[in-house]
Amino acid sequence: MPVYVTPSIIMVRPQMGENIGAVARAMMNFGLSDLRLVQPRDGWPNPKAHEMAAHADYLIEQARVYDSLAEALADRQYVLASSAPRDRVLALPNDGPHTGMARMRQHEAAGEATALLLGPESTGLTNEDMAYAHGIVSIPTHPANMSLNVAQAFVVLAYQWFVSSADPQQTSYPEEVGGDGAIRATIAEMDGLYGHLVNALEKRDYFRPSIKREGMLRALRVLLQRAPWSAQEVRTLRGIVRCLDETSVEPNP
Amino acid sequence: MPVYVTPSIIMVRPQMGENIGAVARAMMNFGLSDLRLVQPRDGWPNPKAHEMAAHADYLIEQARVYDSLAEALADRQYVLASSAPRDRVLALPNDGPHTGMARMRQHEAAGEATALLLGPESTGLTNEDMAYAHGIVSIPTHPANMSLNVAQAFVVLAYQWFVSSADPQQTSYPEEVGGDGAIRATIAEMDGLYGHLVNALEKRDYFRPSIKREGMLRALRVLLQRAPWSAQEVRTLRGIVRCLDETSVEPNP
Repeated sequence: MPVYVTPSIIMVRPQMGENIGAVARAMMNFGLSDLRLVQPRDGWPNPKAHEMAAHADYLIEQARVYDSLAEALADRQYVLASSAPRDRVLALPNDGPHTGMARMRQHEAAGEATALLLGPESTGLTNEDMAYAHGIVSIPTHPANMSLNVAQAFVVLAYQWFVSSADPQQTSYPEEVGGDGAIRATIAEMDGLYGHLVNALEKRDYFRPSIKREGMLRALRVLLQRAPWSAQEVRTLRGIVRCLDETSVEPNP
Repeated sequence: MPVYVTPSIIMVRPQMGENIGAVARAMMNFGLSDLRLVQPRDGWPNPKAHEMAAHADYLIEQARVYDSLAEALADRQYVLASSAPRDRVLALPNDGPHTGMARMRQHEAAGEATALLLGPESTGLTNEDMAYAHGIVSIPTHPANMSLNVAQAFVVLAYQWFVSSADPQQTSYPEEVGGDGAIRATIAEMDGLYGHLVNALEKRDYFRPSIKREGMLRALRVLLQRAPWSAQEVRTLRGIVRCLDETSVEPNP
């Protein structure tokens, strides 16, 4: 079992093996080792990824492949998404590399399992993908040419992560989790709460009109993920949802 | 005639067209446009460079090719070399990306023509190449894997250049040129002085023993380049060299 140095680097529906290899190469240079692939377009293994990785081919060998982003993220607690700035539909904090990677370091320093999402070459991450994230990190570019190659964008973020460190001056943790020093729930635990709540709401025909359904689901996930709950708090909330869902009361007259 | 946004990016003896294309692509994203190639291994044009450049193929089209680094640098005044840290044989200042690119911006702000040197994939820049530079910029990496791909290293430097700006607080220019606000001599002017001086010294059998000759030549170039002379000052110095060279005096008894 290899030792994985995080943040986990999660390539979502990557298209070109060359870019997977280039990401692995930069991971090696900046001391990262947990590469995860969600539905790589050309299957896996991919000889082009090996070739481009050069001496980082060992990272290609130990990369893990997942059928869905939710599975790839299941054991993670804090997630940043690499993307050009988005309109504010998701209401996620949007930082540059310096601030974003310092934030990543702060969450690592607090003992959380972290991840960085990289999108597919053609389209970038969808709003559905980004709804799993706690923040967006965007690289400033020349306004006439904003579309960065995914591996080149990663090089900037990996470098910035490498040279960042959690600010030792910052004694008050920005998003205190629980009251007892408990750490943030995993994405799988949050997903359980989300699924539970959505299911309860579905039964009550909450997500309508149907044209707004997708947006409402995304907004709900973002809303939940913004809260830095501990695993225990998430269990408590699921109990509340269960109670609301399964206990019928007389309607008010 | 295209408008060239500097620093000029000078790839010295680049080997793989793919890396030339990847450099061009990152140049586009960060608003640079003056690509210069010194003795590209596989000739020029190179279809692989075009392919990897994607939408930056216009930068590949307008790239200029040179037979020597001296020619590529002739109109430049301030030069940084991208390299892993070197032993101190060259006595050049060695900074990280943040400081190095801020320094580049300061020299631009002072009106100097700037350049960044990128070395060949296999070996990096030689000491002879780096003797043309006024400083070395090195990217921190994991100590176990320090060898960065040339294009990935460039992405970090281009990003850092893009987000840097000359420090407006800094009112005293770090290396004052002349006493009258004159700007730094070009590399061609400095090369003229160097050649003139070397020639005069050669005639006097100065560079011996022969095993030390190469090192002495490099050290002399670095020594001269460290001085931020203006073009007028360089002309004055050449007059001094000419005087010393061509005026014979009686030896002291």
